[in-house]
Order: sequence, then structure tokens, then C-alpha cells
Amino acid sequence: MIRFAIVGYGNLGRACEKIAANSGKFDLVGIFTRRDPAAMTSPFGTPFFRQDDIESFKGKIDVLALCTGSANDLTELGKRCAASFNTVDSFDTHARMRDYVNDMQRITTASGTLSLIGIGWDPGLFSLMRAVFGGVLAEGNTQTFWGKGVSQGHSEAIRKIEGVVKGVQYTVPKEAALEAARSGRGEGLTTRDKHLRECFVVAAEGADKAAIEKSIVTMPNYFDEYDTIVHFITEEEFDRDHTAMPHGGFVLRSGKAQGKDCSLEFALKLESNPDFTASVLMAYAAAAYKMYNEGKRGALTILDIPAIALTDEERTDFIAHTL
Amino acid sequence: MIRFAIVGYGNLGRACEKIAANSGKFDLVGIFTRRDPAAMTSPFGTPFFRQDDIESFKGKIDVLALCTGSANDLTELGKRCAASFNTVDSFDTHARMRDYVNDMQRITTASGTLSLIGIGWDPGLFSLMRAVFGGVLAEGNTQTFWGKGVSQGHSEAIRKIEGVVKGVQYTVPKEAALEAARSGRGEGLTTRDKHLRECFVVAAEGADKAAIEKSIVTMPNYFDEYDTIVHFITEEEFDRDHTAMPHGGFVLRSGKAQGKDCSLEFALKLESNPDFTASVLMAYAAAAYKMYNEGKRGALTILDIPAIALTDEERTDFIAHTL
Repeated sequence: MIRFAIVGYGNLGRACEKIAANSGKFDLVGIFTRRDPAAMTSPFGTPFFRQDDIESFKGKIDVLALCTGSANDLTELGKRCAASFNTVDSFDTHARMRDYVNDMQRITTASGTLSLIGIGWDPGLFSLMRAVFGGVLAEGNTQTFWGKGVSQGHSEAIRKIEGVVKGVQYTVPKEAALEAARSGRGEGLTTRDKHLRECFVVAAEGADKAAIEKSIVTMPNYFDEYDTIVHFITEEEFDRDHTAMPHGGFVLRSGKAQGKDCSLEFALKLESNPDFTASVLMAYAAAAYKMYNEGKRGALTILDIPAIALTDEERTDFIAHTL
Repeated sequence: MIRFAIVGYGNLGRACEKIAANSGKFDLVGIFTRRDPAAMTSPFGTPFFRQDDIESFKGKIDVLALCTGSANDLTELGKRCAASFNTVDSFDTHARMRDYVNDMQRITTASGTLSLIGIGWDPGLFSLMRAVFGGVLAEGNTQTFWGKGVSQGHSEAIRKIEGVVKGVQYTVPKEAALEAARSGRGEGLTTRDKHLRECFVVAAEGADKAAIEKSIVTMPNYFDEYDTIVHFITEEEFDRDHTAMPHGGFVLRSGKAQGKDCSLEFALKLESNPDFTASVLMAYAAAAYKMYNEGKRGALTILDIPAIALTDEERTDFIAHTL
């Protein structure tokens, strides 16, 4: 059994807890929270502890999943926890990945721990596909599309507008751009060319809908550079149709091998983004345990981890039915 | 520069030679053949040598690509060459993979060499996808589809029928089965449910076309258990439309993460099967050189090799723009 613990009890932390509780291979040591542990309850009876006390669990946890919300919190937490524990996280700010990997490499090397970083679907599986596709087809162009799915950041931006009661934003890949990328005409496509932003908004009674729509579509950084569609719906419709967190996307590479057309595509479709992210994170949590026991140390990304690390089976058995 | 050599000079060997000659990182030591080296010529001026003399090149080759045709030849060649060289091959008989990996593991361990085995697209990339998809989504069903593409074995079987001048067989995935697999109803689908066999045949003048068609569609093991369509065409049509070697296929996994639908799909479309296979094989040939220099030894499959092995870039630079 893998002695396992979680920091943070939002959507991702809860989903990880559920997988750990239902799998036969994790022993749930506890959940660490910045809230009052006495006020927390878990459907699985997992004990809660103060996040500040986590170091007192050194030697009692094999793998720690870092599931706090914001990117800032996560890197600070990662650097603190890697000094005492093996960790897995789904840190997802592409632009800060280099610094985070370097910091974590330094800390894990000093502490003799293992940290798996940026483990989710993007970054994560999408990154793996970009690396493999680019590796095996040197001459070509890779394009990533996101959606159809909920962007938390854009949804929050909508909800801050005066007169908005509820709001959600879906990032939607444009079919024409997908087709262009599939047929080798993806080069030069911008994120704007590739995606549409579709918003569903519940306005307060008497609110100026035209003003809300204008605030959305002209919002700098978030919407002004995109084609944006705004739908006003009732609260009933919103609660019925727009509370799930679907997501997904595509990684496409089109190119040539000795002048002959090749196209590689990875497509992902998820009814629930946090539930699938948790599924990926927990698979790599088990891999972290296995790799640590094999002597691996340091800060690794999904690009550094062979697929065979994901199985509990004996290696040749797994190869025999998978290769 | 990687001192590189090839055994076998068919479609795959020629494509590997072309990549090596055009890339800046391979130094083409030579091509080993069972034919008379003096009778062979290469568009790149690569020297030819007798396959029987290969051991005299020990210490002069960093990586050897095994590109002989038949599966039997390939395993014997692999076992012989791994005693003296680092090798890469695209051995593709799934059912014999376990024995081959075990044999090669024993030989490479004794000789201190590194062999990468079953490196192509299936086995190869498809295997990698099956491993990753199954790893990250524990509850689900994985289905592999092949085509649309030429099956060499089935095409040869057609050409052996009396009255057939030229013939080619395409394996074609059935759209309904693809849709079933995509929407989570893939379990229980057989290879027959999933694929159609489409044949294009040039009959000899005066040949009995009805008899040829019957011989094809009733042929045991090859066609009798499939829906098979036979088209008779002229030699002119055949030479114009059916001399390329397209292929491709799909790996699909549908399942649930905590009860929520997830679907993962890898799709590959190739104008030329041997040219893309060579592209994959050469990417892993470079990876073999890199891994050997990092101290890796033994017999590895694509499941054992992290994606990062495919890049020449400094690790953190690659992570920064790929993850």
C-alpha cells in the first residue's frame, strides 16, 4: 500500500481522495488544509490536518499530491513539500515551468526525494504528444487546440461584471482551423484564429444586457482579441446545462517524411476536467512510488517518465500484451 | 556524428539511408546486404558490404538499423547483431514480442549493448498510446483500428491466385465501429466488426473474374472471416492509383473517471508507410546513441523510453517550450 496524502481540498483534491479511497493500492494518511481541520468532513472519513503541520508527517507519507488552487500557492507549496516528501502536482503555467523545474530539481536533489511536475492533460498528456509527434516527424508543424471546455479564468472575469449573476465561458475550437491544421496548413494560425469564446450569462433583473455584452466582448486580454458570442439565459437554464466542467482539445502535427504526407492527431474529450486530471495525477502518483523504490530521485516531468512506469504489471507481461 | 549503418536495402532500409544522408547527425558507415555488394548502388554513394562480414565492423558503428524484410530473418539478425552492436528495429509480430525481448535482453546484457525493439507505429506509437491511455484512465476500453492502408500479406495472397496479374488489398476501418468505439461502445468489437477488406485486382486477359473473386473472398485466414470487396481494374488504373503504400489507423480509449465520460483518441494518416516508419526508426536510432552515451544498456521497447530521449536539445530548454 502506498501511504498517500493530499494538500488542498478543492475539486481536484476531492477527486484524488475518491480515487485513492476506491483503489486497492493507496492508504489515505490524510488531507492537509489551510482551513480549520476540525470544521472539515470527508465522505471517506479521511482525517484532516493543518497544512502548517505537514513537516511532522515526514517519513509517514510515500507520495503527496499537491492540489491547491492557484499557481502561486502551488509553486511555494511544491518547494516546501519537496524538501520532506515525494510529490506529484499538476502545475499548469507553461511560462513558469522552467523556473519551477529548476527550483524543484535543486530541492529534491538536496533532500533525496522525487517530484513529478506538471502532470495533467495540458501540460501533461498534450506535452507528451507534442514531444513524441515532434520527435518522430522532424519536418512538420504542431498545433494545439483547446475545448470545447470551460475556462475558469474567463468565467471568473465575466462574473465580476456588474449585473452578472452567473456566467460561464467555453473555449471552442474553430472547425475550419482544425481542418487547416489536419491538412498541413496549420502554420501561422494564432490562438485567435483557432478558438471562439462562447459565454452563457444570467443577468440580474433589470440589468442592461447590451452593456454587459459590450463589457464582455471588449474586455482587454480576455476577450477583445477573440470572436466572442454572448448568450443570455435564465438561472434555471444555467443550473441545468452549465454547471459541469467539460474540457478537452487536440494536438495535431502535420508534416512530411521524405516528401510524403503524414498526419498525427491526439484528441481528448472530457465530461469533467477535474475528474480526469485527478485520474492522470493518481496514475503518476503510483508511478512516483514505483520509481522512488527503483531509486529515481529529482524533479521529473511527464516527458522524463517512460509509459511503463504507469503499470503495476511485471514488465515483460505488460510488453507482451501492450506492444 | 553518429556512426550509423543499415542491414537490408528494401523500402525501409532505403528510407533510413535517405534520412541519415540528409540529416546532419549521421555518418553513414555502410549498408549490409545478402546480395552481392558489388552489384549494389546507392543514390548517396553509401558503400555496401556483405552481411556475413558485419562482425568485422565491431567498434566502428554506433547504431545499426535492422531493416530486413521477414519477421524470422529479423529476430535472428537482431540476436546476432546485438552481440556486437547497438541496434534499432521495427520487429512487428506482436505475438512473438515477449520471446524476442527476453532473448535480446539476455544478449545485450552479456555484450553491454543497447537494443531498441519494435520501433515503428504499430507496434510502436500505437503501443505507446495503448500504454499511456490505459495508464491514465484505469476504467475503460481500448480499441485499435488499422487503415485505410495496404496490407502487404493480404496483397501477396491475392497475387498468388491464378489469373491475377496485379493486386493490392486495403484494410479499411468501418465508420460505424469507429463511432461505437469513440462513444464508449467498443467493448466486444472484433477485428472483423471493425475492418473491411477492399481489393483492387488486374486480371489476366481471358481470366475467369468470378472465379478469382470467389478465391479471394473465401480464402481461409486472410479473407473468409471478413467483409471483402473486390474491384477489377485495368493495369493502367492500377499503376496510376495503387502503387503507393498508404497506411494509418486509430487507437481509441473510452471510459470513466469517477463516473464521468472520458475519451482519448490517437489518429495516424500516412501517405507512405515505409517512409514514416523510417522516420520513427531514425528518431529512435538517434535516441539509442544518446541513451547509450548516458549509460543505458539492455533491450528496451518504446514503452521503456521517455519522450525526452527524442530531442537533441538541452533538457530544460526542451521542457520550457514543450511542457
